[in-house]
Amino acid sequence: MTEENTVFIGNKPTMNYVLAVITQFNSGDNKVVLKARGRAISRAVDVAEIVRNRFISDAKIKDIKIGTEPMTTEEGRTTNISSIEISMGK
Amino acid sequence: MTEENTVFIGNKPTMNYVLAVITQFNSGDNKVVLKARGRAISRAVDVAEIVRNRFISDAKIKDIKIGTEPMTTEEGRTTNISSIEISMGK
Repeated sequence: MTEENTVFIGNKPTMNYVLAVITQFNSGDNKVVLKARGRAISRAVDVAEIVRNRFISDAKIKDIKIGTEPMTTEEGRTTNISSIEISMGK
Repeated sequence: MTEENTVFIGNKPTMNYVLAVITQFNSGDNKVVLKARGRAISRAVDVAEIVRNRFISDAKIKDIKIGTEPMTTEEGRTTNISSIEISMGK
């Protein structure tokens, strides 16, 4: 899998990311990975559920991984942030 | 598994839930399930990661499920909310 199959979920409206995932699937990819950190984790779950329930009914959740990544704050300190990786396939 | 092994993650400080999970494991349970909905999903991932990385190093993520649940808003409308279920075991 290349990085092109990955959709990074940030702070934009949820439907922007839903559209990005649908576009990936419709371009012929059979697998799309959603990645998010921190508060965007909830949004990543929303995106996966909306794609699956409303748009691409044969898309399934293949794997979900959670982890911890180091992150540098605006003040220059290093802290840890949780991350999620949701693999969707059809 | 009984409901007693389940920790529902809400809007309290993260460490409250970390303590609840540690207490479950220390009382002899080998499995604890973390459940959360909506924005608390990110906190559930934080709780699992903090327990695993800082407190109970032999605790592992056994399974992660995501889903959609119907919810009634304060105005009486029915809407959907994403949910997560993180199964931890040792």
